[in-house]
Amino acid sequence: MQTIQETNPHSRIESDSMGQIAVPANHYWGAQTERSLHHFAIGEDRMPAELIRAFAILKKAAALVNHDLGKLPQDKMELIVRAADEVIAGQHTDEFPLRIWQTGSGTQTNMNVNEVISNRAIELASGEMGSKNPIHPNDHVNMSQSSNDTFPTAMYVAAASAVKKQVIPAVQRLHDAIAAKAKQFEEVVKIGRTHLQDATPLTLGQEVGGWASLLERDIARMESTLEGLYELAIGGTAVGTGLNTHPEFAERASAKIAALTGLPFRSHPNKFAALSAHDELVFASGALETLSASLMKIANDVRWLGSGPRCGLGELNLPENEPGSSIMPGKVNPTQCEAMTMVAVQVHGNHTAIAFAGSQGNFELNVFKPVMIYNFMHSARLLTDTCHMFVEFCVEGMEANLQRISQYVENCLMLVTALNQHIGYDKAAKLAKTAHHKGLSLREANRELGFLTEEEFDQYLRPEKMTHPEAQ
Amino acid sequence: MQTIQETNPHSRIESDSMGQIAVPANHYWGAQTERSLHHFAIGEDRMPAELIRAFAILKKAAALVNHDLGKLPQDKMELIVRAADEVIAGQHTDEFPLRIWQTGSGTQTNMNVNEVISNRAIELASGEMGSKNPIHPNDHVNMSQSSNDTFPTAMYVAAASAVKKQVIPAVQRLHDAIAAKAKQFEEVVKIGRTHLQDATPLTLGQEVGGWASLLERDIARMESTLEGLYELAIGGTAVGTGLNTHPEFAERASAKIAALTGLPFRSHPNKFAALSAHDELVFASGALETLSASLMKIANDVRWLGSGPRCGLGELNLPENEPGSSIMPGKVNPTQCEAMTMVAVQVHGNHTAIAFAGSQGNFELNVFKPVMIYNFMHSARLLTDTCHMFVEFCVEGMEANLQRISQYVENCLMLVTALNQHIGYDKAAKLAKTAHHKGLSLREANRELGFLTEEEFDQYLRPEKMTHPEAQ
Amino acid sequence: MQTIQETNPHSRIESDSMGQIAVPANHYWGAQTERSLHHFAIGEDRMPAELIRAFAILKKAAALVNHDLGKLPQDKMELIVRAADEVIAGQHTDEFPLRIWQTGSGTQTNMNVNEVISNRAIELASGEMGSKNPIHPNDHVNMSQSSNDTFPTAMYVAAASAVKKQVIPAVQRLHDAIAAKAKQFEEVVKIGRTHLQDATPLTLGQEVGGWASLLERDIARMESTLEGLYELAIGGTAVGTGLNTHPEFAERASAKIAALTGLPFRSHPNKFAALSAHDELVFASGALETLSASLMKIANDVRWLGSGPRCGLGELNLPENEPGSSIMPGKVNPTQCEAMTMVAVQVHGNHTAIAFAGSQGNFELNVFKPVMIYNFMHSARLLTDTCHMFVEFCVEGMEANLQRISQYVENCLMLVTALNQHIGYDKAAKLAKTAHHKGLSLREANRELGFLTEEEFDQYLRPEKMTHPEAQ
Amino acid sequence: MQTIQETNPHSRIESDSMGQIAVPANHYWGAQTERSLHHFAIGEDRMPAELIRAFAILKKAAALVNHDLGKLPQDKMELIVRAADEVIAGQHTDEFPLRIWQTGSGTQTNMNVNEVISNRAIELASGEMGSKNPIHPNDHVNMSQSSNDTFPTAMYVAAASAVKKQVIPAVQRLHDAIAAKAKQFEEVVKIGRTHLQDATPLTLGQEVGGWASLLERDIARMESTLEGLYELAIGGTAVGTGLNTHPEFAERASAKIAALTGLPFRSHPNKFAALSAHDELVFASGALETLSASLMKIANDVRWLGSGPRCGLGELNLPENEPGSSIMPGKVNPTQCEAMTMVAVQVHGNHTAIAFAGSQGNFELNVFKPVMIYNFMHSARLLTDTCHMFVEFCVEGMEANLQRISQYVENCLMLVTALNQHIGYDKAAKLAKTAHHKGLSLREANRELGFLTEEEFDQYLRPEKMTHPEAQ
Repeated sequence: MQTIQETNPHSRIESDSMGQIAVPANHYWGAQTERSLHHFAIGEDRMPAELIRAFAILKKAAALVNHDLGKLPQDKMELIVRAADEVIAGQHTDEFPLRIWQTGSGTQTNMNVNEVISNRAIELASGEMGSKNPIHPNDHVNMSQSSNDTFPTAMYVAAASAVKKQVIPAVQRLHDAIAAKAKQFEEVVKIGRTHLQDATPLTLGQEVGGWASLLERDIARMESTLEGLYELAIGGTAVGTGLNTHPEFAERASAKIAALTGLPFRSHPNKFAALSAHDELVFASGALETLSASLMKIANDVRWLGSGPRCGLGELNLPENEPGSSIMPGKVNPTQCEAMTMVAVQVHGNHTAIAFAGSQGNFELNVFKPVMIYNFMHSARLLTDTCHMFVEFCVEGMEANLQRISQYVENCLMLVTALNQHIGYDKAAKLAKTAHHKGLSLREANRELGFLTEEEFDQYLRPEKMTHPEAQ
Repeated sequence: MQTIQETNPHSRIESDSMGQIAVPANHYWGAQTERSLHHFAIGEDRMPAELIRAFAILKKAAALVNHDLGKLPQDKMELIVRAADEVIAGQHTDEFPLRIWQTGSGTQTNMNVNEVISNRAIELASGEMGSKNPIHPNDHVNMSQSSNDTFPTAMYVAAASAVKKQVIPAVQRLHDAIAAKAKQFEEVVKIGRTHLQDATPLTLGQEVGGWASLLERDIARMESTLEGLYELAIGGTAVGTGLNTHPEFAERASAKIAALTGLPFRSHPNKFAALSAHDELVFASGALETLSASLMKIANDVRWLGSGPRCGLGELNLPENEPGSSIMPGKVNPTQCEAMTMVAVQVHGNHTAIAFAGSQGNFELNVFKPVMIYNFMHSARLLTDTCHMFVEFCVEGMEANLQRISQYVENCLMLVTALNQHIGYDKAAKLAKTAHHKGLSLREANRELGFLTEEEFDQYLRPEKMTHPEAQ
Repeated sequence: MQTIQETNPHSRIESDSMGQIAVPANHYWGAQTERSLHHFAIGEDRMPAELIRAFAILKKAAALVNHDLGKLPQDKMELIVRAADEVIAGQHTDEFPLRIWQTGSGTQTNMNVNEVISNRAIELASGEMGSKNPIHPNDHVNMSQSSNDTFPTAMYVAAASAVKKQVIPAVQRLHDAIAAKAKQFEEVVKIGRTHLQDATPLTLGQEVGGWASLLERDIARMESTLEGLYELAIGGTAVGTGLNTHPEFAERASAKIAALTGLPFRSHPNKFAALSAHDELVFASGALETLSASLMKIANDVRWLGSGPRCGLGELNLPENEPGSSIMPGKVNPTQCEAMTMVAVQVHGNHTAIAFAGSQGNFELNVFKPVMIYNFMHSARLLTDTCHMFVEFCVEGMEANLQRISQYVENCLMLVTALNQHIGYDKAAKLAKTAHHKGLSLREANRELGFLTEEEFDQYLRPEKMTHPEAQ
Repeated sequence: MQTIQETNPHSRIESDSMGQIAVPANHYWGAQTERSLHHFAIGEDRMPAELIRAFAILKKAAALVNHDLGKLPQDKMELIVRAADEVIAGQHTDEFPLRIWQTGSGTQTNMNVNEVISNRAIELASGEMGSKNPIHPNDHVNMSQSSNDTFPTAMYVAAASAVKKQVIPAVQRLHDAIAAKAKQFEEVVKIGRTHLQDATPLTLGQEVGGWASLLERDIARMESTLEGLYELAIGGTAVGTGLNTHPEFAERASAKIAALTGLPFRSHPNKFAALSAHDELVFASGALETLSASLMKIANDVRWLGSGPRCGLGELNLPENEPGSSIMPGKVNPTQCEAMTMVAVQVHGNHTAIAFAGSQGNFELNVFKPVMIYNFMHSARLLTDTCHMFVEFCVEGMEANLQRISQYVENCLMLVTALNQHIGYDKAAKLAKTAHHKGLSLREANRELGFLTEEEFDQYLRPEKMTHPEAQ
């Protein structure tokens, strides 16, 4: 028997299969949580609150189903449900202190949840905390379950909920704000840039609309990956066989979770796969990474178009939110873009960790579960928040600098492209090069070269007509 | 006027907007290809053959559509189609020598294709190569096109074709071979392992079936990402506006490519997005990376289960394909697993490059196109080939070592889990720990502790009954 | 003038170049911190405490040097130093609430430090907080500085301090614990494994000593990267030119920081490079990533060697720290290994983010500073902590299972390798294969094949002699 | 006995411990190479030529040392050396067809080298190819060696040689070309840009000199990582113990390799580490990745500064090397920058693969050796070549657009920073903001606000004085 810490007035004794251990009297957690705190003082990253919430939903669902299947008496079920509901409502956030960097199955967090619900249920029943009576953390709260199926279930519930209820709405909001700007700018003809070099014209609305299109597709991609996340491991127990469960438990528990969350969760058709790999989380993270690439492209375009005010491109005016420099007075920077691009970089790194971890399962279990869900929830949270901030403090106040934009259009040599169909690529190239090397306008160069009459020149070289296909 | 190389009997003079340049007389390529060879002697990575083939399909489709729309005369169309058909058939593989590490739009490869088709068409028409008459590389072969829309179109055609016609069939074959093994092993009860530690039993068929499930899902994931790849940039020309195209060109060209390839390609609804980001390629690469994680897990399981022959786990016997050691006589190694895990690592790295590149677009163009398609095609090819080899030289000859497997089942302490429902978790833990620390069997430990009668023990502790849920 | 929040009894009015803003009365921070809280509600990642501490050291050093150079009066210097000393001592940890995801230069955190020191100094001088009198956050606390040189300076001071004072000592401790085990096991002859297959013997001490060697080299690698981190940006101010600094400021400030930290910091020889890239942080992160690869290899070896107890390799007995399963009674898992391998995965992801960010500088500034230092400090912290836990809860209690180890040696066929020099590779291979396929010992197979006399067999096949080179 | 292919006039029969196999009569390789070709038809990536060359150097060194130690007769040694010298000289490049994606130890490539040298030596001795007489591939060419120590030795020899003899000289050349430009531009005062926004001035020489500084540091970083690569695994044989080697073999063989290559190779102090991890390659790859980040920053700066010609920043004029567009006549793009940034992205991906692979060793061997050296050599080659091209086709012809540069300086509001020390940050900010919002010059705004006399204004606001610290 192992006793790590002496008892004192501020502690009580809890026990597990390793023996007794003192835990703080003012907390609900039990022996295994306490041991984990002792053995895993690694960093400061705690299990995400959304994961704990998902766990409590799962515990409630399991208790209800176990009761329905005749395995758990009514009174015990009700106690577990009451305690779980409190956790779901966020009343016990301080009771889940465990770190990400623990056992790779997340067993200690499953036990943390079991212990807190058990002790809170005991308290509700006026029992003695730590007595495991009338609610035993393993035999009752964890009934028909193992860490090996509950942790991945909680992972997918948390991940799917975050994508569906947080990330997608935030991206939708950003899309809508950008699409509104595209509409606003639909008549603004501007010069295009490819390879950072002057190119043929388009409208600012088209350019901004391209960003909206990326986001629309990002939403569709995320939606498509939700299908995989909706399939839950619950019912697989220790190794995927469903040992110690009723044959109907897996289906019923998933259905109950679906009912409690409002999302179409269902039982994963192969529990061995569901415990030993988290392929669907890797794939869903890939959708977040793709989103992050879209955001980096958009944020970069915004800050480059807003660069200046006098020595940059200066086509967009961005909101001035805060002083930009501690030394340069009056400087204003595209800080929302910078926060967003930093988030994009982080999501790229997070995905790399998730994909690596997802490949490292052995036999019946992947023991990189906590690091996978940690990075996924981190990405989801950052992406959600940066989209909201970007809408509010950047997109909505973004305006076109019409004067600058039209100056560029007037000067740009690439309008010459419209002449390909009239004088051929080779002559058109000669015209552009003459203008470039002699510092002339296209019109002046044409006069020198005599390729077109003035009337033809005026007819063919109309920027606004170059922004769409045109039958000839 | 710039002339890089003096003419000689083995060369002819070609020209472009930079001036004249000598090119090898025995090749079809022209001035821009030659310039690229000169300016980009970087590494040895050539544009993938599948990309060149996709380009030729695209050139043929464009010629047909331009003709249909009345922009390209019948004779010119036919010449282009004949030359393109030869490229499609693989007759000119030595004519596309350009490297990945060139301009980021792939312009030089587009021009390489334009030049080869132009000169071959001229040859077919008994014209003078380099004369651009009767087929001009820009005005005719590239009609209604820009590198900026053709290169991403060729990327997506090549990528989608590779996934659909190469990767998915290879994964399906691997799936089927593994599923057949799962069927063969469905009666073999073996011990499970979680955290690498002994766990409760399952059948070898269940374990192997978990691998099959992963692959089945990988196929579904890849299929879902094809939807994005089917949407083509063609018709966007220089910046996405479709300048110099007929209003129907985009839709018609995509439909023609669909007809030529047998895949449901269609026109991308937003050409600005299609040129300036390759989001769908990033996402599809994420599906390949997820597949690679599945393959790493499977290959690792196979080699660990096959480890030994005398000092490892030894549950599987793997085919002996080649000598395993230059110094240890008679050694045989799980080399197919090693090739597969190395491929998985490479795909992880390739994806990282693709995702990075996908985030770096500016304004109307992403100029990291060649590096993106290079890595994607590399991943696709390696994944395809390693699956085929793995089936042929590993899975098909893989056999169960029944003697070893049953020894493990007899000895394993985790069978005790079946007792949770009869004596509770705490007593069951005591039983297991007693057996472990005293080196006893569970039966012997139970005799010492007296938890169950012999009859109960025999009734509850039956490994084969622990491989599935059971109503009680 | 912009006023974000109405004043109330619990707030006071602060101002910056954007105008006035209400801040909480019970905090020292000022207008720019408050604006950042408002505009950057992104995630929960705060600036690392070590970075804030480094900033305070820098502010103290700057004040001292500005005073020495005659730019800052004695009384102002003393006020700044007193306030900075409090921050260094950790007295104001709640005053630095800003997130990582803010402006990419970290300007707002530099201003947060300036504002807190300013207001605390004003308080010490019995002035009115927010009055900027007698200590102005820009003119006095930030004197001779810009965010653009202070933030990277604080980054490198925090990073170098963490590596030198936290990571290296933790790795050294792990090295020493492992080296002690190598010594303890130096006489234990065991079978080697290559490709997971049985190979020739070595001692357990040699195997474990290989781990120690990796760690020793990791320390050397980290030390070598410190040289780059010791070179500080301070003195470059806004763009690297040192505008608004005294010509001696850069050298003196670095020397002062060296004196305050006890580490050999010095002035970076090229401030333009120091502001616009953080190459040395990327490189140092590479050393952390290399360490993480070593740790993954070690932790994997430990858990595989400890796998079992009855169905694994079982050569090592690992400490039993906590119950391993919520469903399988008595199960104990290699959880310290799992925490360590998860940390390794995270460091891999963190490095990917750092390297990406490090490549994204433009012109005079890299605006991915916060994401870079966030990931670096995260890696440093996790690596430090996991090493300590691993020593205490895994390595120190790790024991060899001598019985199992010697059984393997007796059975292994790869001892045949010792015969290469006596009967040649080909005959030796035949001997091993005969034994393998007929289930014989090498001795029995030799009797069948008659390659060696019994005396020769006994003389050549001695495992303990196979663990080192030997002249013949 | 296994015979894969029937004999025919174009083949001969070779044998190994698996049995007989037909190999092409016109090639030197033997049975194991042939088996590998059959079993590993995966992709097209061949073992790098530099690795094969390093292997041949190693085989020569081993033969010489084995002879010196009395283990290999003079005539056999001489035959091996003659054959190895031919391989070193590049005479047999078609004899090494094996792919990267084979056994993870590279055993098959070691045997490929053994077989080719053996058969060529037999041919030189007028023996019968395939007879293994007088030179046996295992007993003589591979004497005192295993794949497990030779492959990592060849890896490090190839990697160190590439870094020292290819990459560093290329980076040095680029550094020198850039430093020359910095010298050329040292008097050109230009505006700085931070956050892409206008900032205080610096000289173009300072800006470009910052790039040179990065490269100088990259060289130092690469040099520092060479130390680790110089330590060789040779002498460890199968598992690190040096079984079947003379006690002096390891030291002597490394010294011989040093003599043959001119690089200070030495024996790795711990062979167990040297076989089971390739930590030094991971670290050295980190230096290449850091270089790639520097190159991305430099190439991005060059193309942004060169953007335009009329709608971009336009401060640099870049050489016009090739036509930039297939549709836009006369367009010229910063293609050398694009090739370089794509290389940077690839090196980032390659490093990710290397670091992943480096973490995956088990027990006495890391079996991800081929994928590690493949990616390393790929990175080294691409980095070398892109530097040379960038010098020749971009840096050397790069010129400053003095007119544009001086226009920016005249207009920029951030010159106001010089006034901090005279009127304080707050007034300076007001001055800048007034100018910005009213579209005034700083001088005009000052007249409105009356902060300075005209004389003071002229004295304080001198851009050229703002490019360096200045005592006041």
